[in-house]
Amino acid sequence: MLKTLVIVSHPTVEESGSQQFLIQSITSPPLEQVTLHVIEQAYPDGQIDVKKEQQLLKDHDRILFQFPFYWYSSPPLLKQWQDEVLTEHFAFGYRGNKLKGKEFGLILSVGIAEKEYQSGGQEGYSMSELTKPYQALARKTQMTYLKPLVIYQFAYLSEQAKMEVLVKYQQYLTLAKPDSLKSREEWIKKELNAIDYETLPVENASFVIEQVIELLEDNRMELDELRMHIDNFHD
Amino acid sequence: MLKTLVIVSHPTVEESGSQQFLIQSITSPPLEQVTLHVIEQAYPDGQIDVKKEQQLLKDHDRILFQFPFYWYSSPPLLKQWQDEVLTEHFAFGYRGNKLKGKEFGLILSVGIAEKEYQSGGQEGYSMSELTKPYQALARKTQMTYLKPLVIYQFAYLSEQAKMEVLVKYQQYLTLAKPDSLKSREEWIKKELNAIDYETLPVENASFVIEQVIELLEDNRMELDELRMHIDNFHD
Repeated sequence: MLKTLVIVSHPTVEESGSQQFLIQSITSPPLEQVTLHVIEQAYPDGQIDVKKEQQLLKDHDRILFQFPFYWYSSPPLLKQWQDEVLTEHFAFGYRGNKLKGKEFGLILSVGIAEKEYQSGGQEGYSMSELTKPYQALARKTQMTYLKPLVIYQFAYLSEQAKMEVLVKYQQYLTLAKPDSLKSREEWIKKELNAIDYETLPVENASFVIEQVIELLEDNRMELDELRMHIDNFHD
Repeated sequence: MLKTLVIVSHPTVEESGSQQFLIQSITSPPLEQVTLHVIEQAYPDGQIDVKKEQQLLKDHDRILFQFPFYWYSSPPLLKQWQDEVLTEHFAFGYRGNKLKGKEFGLILSVGIAEKEYQSGGQEGYSMSELTKPYQALARKTQMTYLKPLVIYQFAYLSEQAKMEVLVKYQQYLTLAKPDSLKSREEWIKKELNAIDYETLPVENASFVIEQVIELLEDNRMELDELRMHIDNFHD
């Protein structure tokens, strides 16, 4: 089963609404197979235990950096972590293949609207351009770079939109292919099945949920059928 | 006259051959109009004096970041400096125009060969791609972004090549348009004129130097003439 390491870096993580929202969703109750690692809390004096960090990396399949995208980069402690932990002969260079084949992704919180990250926008550059140093890091360490999960203007989101962020976040942490339709469907089915129907306020809740599951399965069958037709058409 | 602030960041600046080489060239004797500011030495405890730093920025016309390009970004203290000093209402946002119109540049030391920074090369990305966060910083703070001065594999350079790096470095710090032919010529003439001929070992050194100056002036006249012909041709 996929094991995910979420390395969180934030200069004042306790005071960050978005970080606390995300962190609580994977700690209460704890999300199995996910290790949360807030480095400012682990190393308040900035003395990073390099051996311990390298062991953590080896023990996981998916490595995620979660941070506020201040000045288009990470907070200082995460950069220090990169410089000290991702050493030659471990992460790159001769025999430096300990991260090879793992997945690497970014979970960025951003204070500016999504539409500003393009030519002509207020920020002028796209996220794909601004995150090039992280793409280069994944490349050099032979990790597979995932599409980043970028959370724009969290504080302005409606409750509904925040819940949608949570679903995407948990999927990003746990799904084999976080952005495929099939993976997302399966995640929703699993979550729905895990609900304790007895505690639901509405009496026929279990019926409703079963209907949702059925609907998702039908959608999948229809999609598979369509795909088959397309494949035949191409032959 | 142009006033330049060189903000140096390096986790172990005393032990860095390239940083010491560069720093000594502007401190002994001190290069006039250039302020050297090694932030790890100024703030060994990481407590940055934000007001003092903002005043330093206001007092200079050209702001340069000089650092080793570890993991395609700056050392942690410089990132902390960015996050704490380049605040809203100072560097960007409402009334945040204190850096507007200044020049901003990077002096990067890099351990990998220049040819690896391209598609298909070992690093896979160009310097223009990897430095996008700094281009975005200059854009957001309304500073003019200069071509970076990148020093590749300093330790492997010949003495002659190191001297050439020094000349480029000093020009990058002091010239109005650091990479124009005219600016570089004027810089060389100024440097030659500043030599104390009496202390030169060769008796006719002053004659030689005058010849060099004359040659440069001739070149300039010829270039100006050629340019005039081209302009007439286009009319």
